[in-house]
Amino acid sequence: MSPLPARVRIVEVGPRDGLQNEAEIVPADVKIELIDRLAAAGCETIEAGSFVSPKWVPQMADTAEVLAGIERRPGVGYPVLVPNMKGLERALDSGVEEVAVFAAASEAFSRRNINCSISESLERFAPVTEAAAARGLKVRGYVSCVLGCPYQGEVPLADVARVSKALTDMGCYEVSLGDTIGVGTPLKAARMVEAVAADVPVDRLALHFHDTYGQALANIYACLGLGVSVIDAAVGGLGGCPYAKGASGNVASEDLVYMLDGMGIATGIDLAALTETARFISAAIGRAPASHVAKALG
Amino acid sequence: MSPLPARVRIVEVGPRDGLQNEAEIVPADVKIELIDRLAAAGCETIEAGSFVSPKWVPQMADTAEVLAGIERRPGVGYPVLVPNMKGLERALDSGVEEVAVFAAASEAFSRRNINCSISESLERFAPVTEAAAARGLKVRGYVSCVLGCPYQGEVPLADVARVSKALTDMGCYEVSLGDTIGVGTPLKAARMVEAVAADVPVDRLALHFHDTYGQALANIYACLGLGVSVIDAAVGGLGGCPYAKGASGNVASEDLVYMLDGMGIATGIDLAALTETARFISAAIGRAPASHVAKALG
Repeated sequence: MSPLPARVRIVEVGPRDGLQNEAEIVPADVKIELIDRLAAAGCETIEAGSFVSPKWVPQMADTAEVLAGIERRPGVGYPVLVPNMKGLERALDSGVEEVAVFAAASEAFSRRNINCSISESLERFAPVTEAAAARGLKVRGYVSCVLGCPYQGEVPLADVARVSKALTDMGCYEVSLGDTIGVGTPLKAARMVEAVAADVPVDRLALHFHDTYGQALANIYACLGLGVSVIDAAVGGLGGCPYAKGASGNVASEDLVYMLDGMGIATGIDLAALTETARFISAAIGRAPASHVAKALG
Repeated sequence: MSPLPARVRIVEVGPRDGLQNEAEIVPADVKIELIDRLAAAGCETIEAGSFVSPKWVPQMADTAEVLAGIERRPGVGYPVLVPNMKGLERALDSGVEEVAVFAAASEAFSRRNINCSISESLERFAPVTEAAAARGLKVRGYVSCVLGCPYQGEVPLADVARVSKALTDMGCYEVSLGDTIGVGTPLKAARMVEAVAADVPVDRLALHFHDTYGQALANIYACLGLGVSVIDAAVGGLGGCPYAKGASGNVASEDLVYMLDGMGIATGIDLAALTETARFISAAIGRAPASHVAKALG
């Protein structure tokens, strides 16, 4: 094991990955307040929305309005998801400086979720990342199903590494490894990161773990010793109703910050302000925060 | 780090530590069914109750009745807590084969919780453990507040080690290290175990972590590499209402088994039967199970 990192950059995905997967559609003004509160709490990267078709993802239909309404703090990044050239154009119109593209490590998931093979999805993203780079945008890549797939079950590590490398080769400065259904456990998570790190420098990898089975923090801890220092998380554990079957929220940012604070790993985030933000957005969607920290400090 | 253990023994504390800290008082027949279901699911050690004063802990007033009602499976241990000689006598009358005594690593907690200093509490337990040994009973020791105290805050590691060693010297075959308020994080947990293991053989240590801030599994994972292979957990995360301020339930047995299963570490416990048991007892006390696994598989 490497020593643990002195600093971790948390990519706050609550406003996008979180709210996109909540039943309730949140009004733009609430999203704007959420994002501004997160920035005020010290979050330096906040996924602000997604330029996908509103037909498929109505929760994100107001991303342009949200981007126009937020206070853009110096030093804070506000990336948005783009699925194709049309999405990139809309992102550029909104003045974003960073976009994200997404592929699956599972062939079955790729076909069911974006209706094409993994290879086809990568081909589709190539012109997007190229155009983004030409316009001076940073591009982040997501790989889903890195520790298992709801349709095909096991996902070969070689596939995770291959897709991650393809995204990096395409120009993604960072690849976020997503345990979409939260089935990973610490040793599997660490082995997956090691497998990908054989093909992609470990300092270009991020962890994106869901807490479906309560394993996310243990998995993150297991991977921190491998040199990873970027972690995706969602305030309030947004992204899955905690009382529903198959709840699959992202790891809660405040639980993650609590762990990192306790280990002396800097994040720049104020835990009390973050927890207050978890309460704000959870109240807005009509439920209690899914995090342990928000309950304990409540 | 040592290699992870091939096998972990889980000490199921739901029927005692769990139910003792729930608002609802559970009838004896429900406790009996709970214990029998846990044994059927493969639990080999099930804390069955406590012979403390019913004035202080009304939830455990029926421990003799519970012990008389359960099916005692061969190979399964059913320890009970005893605070003093009177408790030991009652335990002996109930035909138990194992008892547990408890001390705090925090001076402030000891005084507030059992109204005497740590030294006085250890003196009080000495005749209990001696008499228990003379009657052929196994004695387990608990140390609370090993990673922090609600009254004094920090707890010196030297105090944790000193109390643990005193209990071992007194004849406890195993000492369970309790993060009573769940404030530990992985590095602190590992350092605490290392400190205690300097004075007590690591194979006589057990982990007893609460999930107040969601850190329990990460802490357990961090300590598994140190040679610990006994872990306390409570089915359904019993021990703290998940919706109340300062919820401080034990780590949920089913979340722990999910992690260990995923790492190929044997427990002898059937996850589906355990999760069904979590649902049974949670329904009996009128709430949803606090575990992630029970929600995900629900």
